[in-house]
Amino acid sequence: MAPNTTPIAIVAGVGPGTGAAVARKFSAAYPVVLLARSPANFESLAEEINKAGGKAIGISTDISDEASVKAAFEKIRKEYEDAPIAAAVFNAGGKFVRKSVMEQTVEEFGAGWHVGVKGAFIFSQAVLPGLLKHAENDPKHQPTLIFTGATASIKANPLMAGFASSKFALRALATSIAKEVAPKGVHVAHAVIDGVIDIPRTKDWLKDMPPEAKIGADDIADAYWNLHLQSKRCFSNEIDIRPMLEKW
Amino acid sequence: MAPNTTPIAIVAGVGPGTGAAVARKFSAAYPVVLLARSPANFESLAEEINKAGGKAIGISTDISDEASVKAAFEKIRKEYEDAPIAAAVFNAGGKFVRKSVMEQTVEEFGAGWHVGVKGAFIFSQAVLPGLLKHAENDPKHQPTLIFTGATASIKANPLMAGFASSKFALRALATSIAKEVAPKGVHVAHAVIDGVIDIPRTKDWLKDMPPEAKIGADDIADAYWNLHLQSKRCFSNEIDIRPMLEKW
Amino acid sequence: MAPNTTPIAIVAGVGPGTGAAVARKFSAAYPVVLLARSPANFESLAEEINKAGGKAIGISTDISDEASVKAAFEKIRKEYEDAPIAAAVFNAGGKFVRKSVMEQTVEEFGAGWHVGVKGAFIFSQAVLPGLLKHAENDPKHQPTLIFTGATASIKANPLMAGFASSKFALRALATSIAKEVAPKGVHVAHAVIDGVIDIPRTKDWLKDMPPEAKIGADDIADAYWNLHLQSKRCFSNEIDIRPMLEKW
Amino acid sequence: MAPNTTPIAIVAGVGPGTGAAVARKFSAAYPVVLLARSPANFESLAEEINKAGGKAIGISTDISDEASVKAAFEKIRKEYEDAPIAAAVFNAGGKFVRKSVMEQTVEEFGAGWHVGVKGAFIFSQAVLPGLLKHAENDPKHQPTLIFTGATASIKANPLMAGFASSKFALRALATSIAKEVAPKGVHVAHAVIDGVIDIPRTKDWLKDMPPEAKIGADDIADAYWNLHLQSKRCFSNEIDIRPMLEKW
Repeated sequence: MAPNTTPIAIVAGVGPGTGAAVARKFSAAYPVVLLARSPANFESLAEEINKAGGKAIGISTDISDEASVKAAFEKIRKEYEDAPIAAAVFNAGGKFVRKSVMEQTVEEFGAGWHVGVKGAFIFSQAVLPGLLKHAENDPKHQPTLIFTGATASIKANPLMAGFASSKFALRALATSIAKEVAPKGVHVAHAVIDGVIDIPRTKDWLKDMPPEAKIGADDIADAYWNLHLQSKRCFSNEIDIRPMLEKW
Repeated sequence: MAPNTTPIAIVAGVGPGTGAAVARKFSAAYPVVLLARSPANFESLAEEINKAGGKAIGISTDISDEASVKAAFEKIRKEYEDAPIAAAVFNAGGKFVRKSVMEQTVEEFGAGWHVGVKGAFIFSQAVLPGLLKHAENDPKHQPTLIFTGATASIKANPLMAGFASSKFALRALATSIAKEVAPKGVHVAHAVIDGVIDIPRTKDWLKDMPPEAKIGADDIADAYWNLHLQSKRCFSNEIDIRPMLEKW
Repeated sequence: MAPNTTPIAIVAGVGPGTGAAVARKFSAAYPVVLLARSPANFESLAEEINKAGGKAIGISTDISDEASVKAAFEKIRKEYEDAPIAAAVFNAGGKFVRKSVMEQTVEEFGAGWHVGVKGAFIFSQAVLPGLLKHAENDPKHQPTLIFTGATASIKANPLMAGFASSKFALRALATSIAKEVAPKGVHVAHAVIDGVIDIPRTKDWLKDMPPEAKIGADDIADAYWNLHLQSKRCFSNEIDIRPMLEKW
Repeated sequence: MAPNTTPIAIVAGVGPGTGAAVARKFSAAYPVVLLARSPANFESLAEEINKAGGKAIGISTDISDEASVKAAFEKIRKEYEDAPIAAAVFNAGGKFVRKSVMEQTVEEFGAGWHVGVKGAFIFSQAVLPGLLKHAENDPKHQPTLIFTGATASIKANPLMAGFASSKFALRALATSIAKEVAPKGVHVAHAVIDGVIDIPRTKDWLKDMPPEAKIGADDIADAYWNLHLQSKRCFSNEIDIRPMLEKW
């Protein structure tokens, strides 16, 4: 039997914001797999994509847990018959607290790392074989692995030790992987999302400001899609993104 | 008489590589103005664009000379009846020498700054009113000012003092302008072009390597165009670009 | 009874190189506490310092384990009667592997973080009360907390994902703490050690090069001491250190 | 006649603040040459140093003018009989304006570059032969060339295009020179002075804040001196400096 060459896309950390927007965007081109801890985060989205003519499945996954991720990818392999992976987006992050370094627990400090860095590593290990397989098929668009960063990826503020250290670490992980797999045709990019994303959870933030004080989740998805379209002769490995009215 | 609201694009530093590719790309949407010192650098390109159904004019301009730039923009204003500017790309750089800091002249050291930084400042002053005017028209795509950087924008190597210091300076200029005019709707971006661009002058470089060891000029143009398409809620102010096989 | 105002210094991650040199240096001014997992790493050093007229004790501590660190600090408090802390140096790091991101285990990837970041956090929590107490005593030299970084703190290379991400994270942690406690008089600094340190383990590295191809551990200790001497009106929060012959 | 091996120190950009403090500090070890445009900036300082038992001469010099600098160094060579140079500190900067990029003149924009970058280049060319000569004498302390940077060396703010671009450029120049001459034993360092220096001109700034809201000029001088003391096996090429109460 000929190997399956129809690629899929996988989004880890699907919630009501960036992850969902990215999944919608990529679903126009690829079947998408939605990974999130809670099915509530992907069920209606999968339904929406499937109704719209795309194809989506959600798998409840704890991205910080290797066994959980392995189980999820076992399902993906079965469902999509060892499909190559055209795009993988890591959008997960742990809860973070805004607290003095003296007042937080080791667990609070480490939460960002366990989900946002160790999780990113586990996810990368899970998707890289499929991304490399896609690269070998000489695809129209290079397989792409994108990590979502934040202001804290490049700026460590007080009371943000856990979040900032995890985001700095994620950036280093992304760069290290980018350098390793680029020669094999896999495009790895890191996006510094520098501003408030306009999602249900932030609807009361910056309330007195016009819409362009926040970042549109759909706009991030467009930017990620454009990264995916870049040729072998033009990889952007890092972009920043901020709304027009952001002070920086 | 109603004001002219048909926007134009202006590219400074048009040669056989990035500048030409950018001009071609933007000419699909806007009349383009090509600025270069030597008419040989824009004549055939203008002809090519005009034949292809676009509209292009070239103006011989010394971008490092305020009077020359003012004269060029006087011509532009007449030719295009005070048109707003949708996009402006600064792609010029001075000659640079690879020499010990002890062996170069002050003129050699300063060449990069005069063209690549002072020139960028003069160009910015010339285009910003037109970019701001376009922003006020609530355009489909935000007016965009893009500066072309290099590896040396973020890495200062030995024997490269003049080039690196001018590229560091250009990056600072780009950021300062970006922060100033973003709230008015003008999107300013800086691109770190980290690798050899595949142009006639570099055809013998990396000869034994496959095509993806060099950056495609057309690919840079695509990336710039995508920056131009970004919404008010998603400005990338800095991107890097390198070919798949670049070591970094 | 009047509170104990005689300050101590604490070095975490004492081995035969930087940690030992730092301990020796600071022992000229303060009783020093040496923390290392294995007593072999501090026993002869403590003896050496005590014989030389200084005062040193070693405590076997797993810096990545909160309970172990708490037990160590309980001993310190008893031994030194709640002494304020004049200086604390974090010099620990986990083992790291040079491996493809696809070929290492989650444990290998995380080793750098558990010791070098979580450990740094636990250590910071343990020393900050003593450092703040010292600041309140209006000391001659501000209490100082120094973190030892590496090339990988600012550069993420391929095959180094675990190490680089932990060092990026440590840098962010250091900066976040620095910003939080500086207004209270605690000086936090991060040192980017960019080169091979001349220690027994590296004696065969760069063998054909002169001594100034490596960093002297004693020289690092001098640099740390000078950070400690800086006044409230002149905190260096980050320095880099490399040998004369380093390429960078 | 045996060559003169008694080294001197040279400070460019002597005013009532950092330059003067640095000159005083280095005058304890070396005869110092004070370069400033206006004799008013060095006359009383030279007198003070000479009275205190040191040796200082001032030379009126326009550091941005190659001929002026050459004339100054001709005087220095005669006065000090081709003395090697132990330390050279570049502390000059052009006037800067806080203005929209659209409202400043090319001259205003370029002022920072002409003095602060071109001047730094001219100064470097003038001192490097003497620094290299000193390195060959196997001195106790490596010859040191220090450049004074600012917050704007790493952060480009709006309305600060000229200043920031010149400071970014200076940083690149410093790094390029550092990499070139380090293997020959010359230690080049760049200091990011991130805060208000406490000098007569700033006496009304931050008036309601305690003294540690400003940087002490003497403290900067101490930091520069400590850079000078670093061994071949431990060069710091960049340090930052800020007062305890600085927000960053």
